[in-house]
Amino acid sequence: MSPAEFRRRGREVIDWIADYWERVETLPVLSPVTPGAVRDSLPPHPPAVGEPFEDVMRDLEQLILPGITHWQSPNFFAYFPANTSGPSVLGDLVSSGLGVQGMLWATSPACTELETLVLDWLGEMLDLPPQFHSTGSGGGVIQDSASSAALCALLAGRERATKGASNTQGADPRLVAYTSSQAHSSIEKAVKIAGLGSDKLRLIAVDANFALRPEALAAQLEADLAAGLLPCFVCATVGTTSSNAMDPLPAIGRLCRDHHVWLHVDAAMSGTAALCPEFRGIQAGLALADSYCFDPHKWMFTNFDCNCFYVADRRALVSALSVLPEYLRNQATESGAVIDYRDWHVPLGRRFRALKLWLVIRHYGVHGLQQLIREHVHLAQEFAQWVQADPRFELAAPAPLNLVCFRMRADDDANQQLLERLNQSGALYLTHTRLDGRFTLRFCVGQTQTERRHVQAAWARIQEGAGR
Amino acid sequence: MSPAEFRRRGREVIDWIADYWERVETLPVLSPVTPGAVRDSLPPHPPAVGEPFEDVMRDLEQLILPGITHWQSPNFFAYFPANTSGPSVLGDLVSSGLGVQGMLWATSPACTELETLVLDWLGEMLDLPPQFHSTGSGGGVIQDSASSAALCALLAGRERATKGASNTQGADPRLVAYTSSQAHSSIEKAVKIAGLGSDKLRLIAVDANFALRPEALAAQLEADLAAGLLPCFVCATVGTTSSNAMDPLPAIGRLCRDHHVWLHVDAAMSGTAALCPEFRGIQAGLALADSYCFDPHKWMFTNFDCNCFYVADRRALVSALSVLPEYLRNQATESGAVIDYRDWHVPLGRRFRALKLWLVIRHYGVHGLQQLIREHVHLAQEFAQWVQADPRFELAAPAPLNLVCFRMRADDDANQQLLERLNQSGALYLTHTRLDGRFTLRFCVGQTQTERRHVQAAWARIQEGAGR
Repeated sequence: MSPAEFRRRGREVIDWIADYWERVETLPVLSPVTPGAVRDSLPPHPPAVGEPFEDVMRDLEQLILPGITHWQSPNFFAYFPANTSGPSVLGDLVSSGLGVQGMLWATSPACTELETLVLDWLGEMLDLPPQFHSTGSGGGVIQDSASSAALCALLAGRERATKGASNTQGADPRLVAYTSSQAHSSIEKAVKIAGLGSDKLRLIAVDANFALRPEALAAQLEADLAAGLLPCFVCATVGTTSSNAMDPLPAIGRLCRDHHVWLHVDAAMSGTAALCPEFRGIQAGLALADSYCFDPHKWMFTNFDCNCFYVADRRALVSALSVLPEYLRNQATESGAVIDYRDWHVPLGRRFRALKLWLVIRHYGVHGLQQLIREHVHLAQEFAQWVQADPRFELAAPAPLNLVCFRMRADDDANQQLLERLNQSGALYLTHTRLDGRFTLRFCVGQTQTERRHVQAAWARIQEGAGR
Repeated sequence: MSPAEFRRRGREVIDWIADYWERVETLPVLSPVTPGAVRDSLPPHPPAVGEPFEDVMRDLEQLILPGITHWQSPNFFAYFPANTSGPSVLGDLVSSGLGVQGMLWATSPACTELETLVLDWLGEMLDLPPQFHSTGSGGGVIQDSASSAALCALLAGRERATKGASNTQGADPRLVAYTSSQAHSSIEKAVKIAGLGSDKLRLIAVDANFALRPEALAAQLEADLAAGLLPCFVCATVGTTSSNAMDPLPAIGRLCRDHHVWLHVDAAMSGTAALCPEFRGIQAGLALADSYCFDPHKWMFTNFDCNCFYVADRRALVSALSVLPEYLRNQATESGAVIDYRDWHVPLGRRFRALKLWLVIRHYGVHGLQQLIREHVHLAQEFAQWVQADPRFELAAPAPLNLVCFRMRADDDANQQLLERLNQSGALYLTHTRLDGRFTLRFCVGQTQTERRHVQAAWARIQEGAGR
């Protein structure tokens, strides 16, 4: 494709995306296609010769779009959001166009240095403890997801607990990890991957608000130590996926410090709220943590993938993940004056993801981002009030920020049927969880284009679905 | 950013990228900046209020670009390429604009189904054994990198060897893994991560062409079995990073089959060559493998990240990586009629990466891709002939495809100085390795815009650098 054709086609694609964002509100949020339908509509074999670009755009519109569940719809209230924005998409486009690899500082210095800078900016914007800044003992890196960040944190904790021995001799069979029964499934996945085994993951009991009970953690730590085991990792959650529960970081942090256990704090969606001083209490106690992550690709208008992962001591992370073959040796690395981000995560290759974050922060500014987050929280709080004011409904958990867990005062089947009817209508999309064993609807406000009218319309639909 | 502003700014960015590709040849390939220079040129604190888009584009041009090493320059001959193309960038742009999550089939059916289809297309284009197709017992998935693919393959092999016990009880201390002394550092990284420990990675000796010696692998397997150990994973390489050595898959495959050991084949860059029937011999014996991967983001005109990872038995992979919490349960998953790709890799979230691959294949067509790959191999072979024809130089290894390892007939210092002079000139960029302990220059032809004149100019520079 010549640069001239790229210019022409590029404009078409830009316009197609702008059109898409303008009409996405009118599309059924949850794709109604049945399994196999999209594939069956496409040619089973690749084309022998190149096809015109028009044909691809036509198929995108006619065959792919019906199979899309519209995460960018303002009526998307499911899971956690994966919101995006114009500046983010354009930043990512620049990254694709430059096509550089940032595995080493030397392979494209700006890719590394802008990332370090932007993660320091974010550290300032969130008021993270000084040790998480690159100017201190730690620093930040962009990972693909909170799952990968948790794995890296666990590996760093594993290696610190075994003084580096697990990397060479295999995962010490005495290693134990801890998180709450409400933590994300990625913690169990990480514990399996890292060779501890899921039997060694202690799922600590939670309180009535689904937050980890520190005294239960303390008891389990004591019991494991008494049994000759080796606690190496605790994951606390700031905003669980299920119900947005907030684990008590100060108490957990003190336990981890006393027992020399790596504390990772997973604030995947909710961390973005700390942009606003009034919500910053969710991360009180973070100074006691060894690592921290949150996802700008969830709630901070930055398209996937963009997980920001911070460590208080970068040496612990790098020593857990570094391998240096000859073909990657270079003067800058040997000098010790630079960061090589390949040693901060699992993959070697890495794209220039800091660009989209840089564009988002510069476009909105700190105040602009704060205003949008405040509005989302406000809308969710309003929704929670409507739920409480309607005698047919009840809140199923506290709603500290932008996620509301609720249910009809009815049995599980009735609630499940309500959810399915709502989603099949195409007018909105929400998902479910189980709290105290009961089927619970989750309503999360975080999509970039969601306004009060969308939340109002959703609540009207929900009320209607419950029968009058 | 309103859709109207996105249209305007989007066109500016598209034009900026087209301009960049048109002038990239004139820019110094290797960035000349010193550590810290890019960061120091940027504001230390984030902006309180949003800034005009013009300012960002100005800084991109004036402050970021000088810190870029130009992987998209036709004079980039370093490492392995990370080439890209117009259709790929536009496919990735559509993915950013749609902003969907493909972690489950249900979260956007088209994202999963197009990926399965396009990976089957590629399986056909490469003539992969039928078990690697989704219509057989296996199938393909896009991962971020060959490093992550190797980790997943190792985990599947670990679990198969321990009948699933390592996931629950921790990595069995008897587990052993095997690869050649020339394999990529990601294998050692994976063995550490998965809790085997690097002491349990056997680096098997290679022959004069730097290919794994099957009899040495056989002897090590026998010795480990005799010692009561549990071989679980062999990684064979089709085109090592260091010198493009080709491990003998048929002999390795037979050993793995006889000993029930998972065989993973890493063809990160060179796998793309199998698009051309005349180069397909590099993967002879692949039918004996359990998993296979190659990187369209290296040599197939598809921007990072895009690793295609295939397994012969998808159940083995999924059972190694699956964790299903309540908030991800859905009817489609329970029905068993769909693929949930989150169980095929480490992260949960995933972007719609199949789009860029779909656009690349449809734009070029199979014949178009074959023609470009043939031309790159032809150019590298011509370069190898020039090296051989000049008495001051010698080839350091066989050059089966598009990588030429060579050196001056001089000591390491002289070769290292030659490399540094060439790279500092800005006219081209190549990197080094060590073969048989000797400093060796690597010249890899694979950038999208590289033509014969660029290879000629590079060789003229190299000759000049060697002194006349």
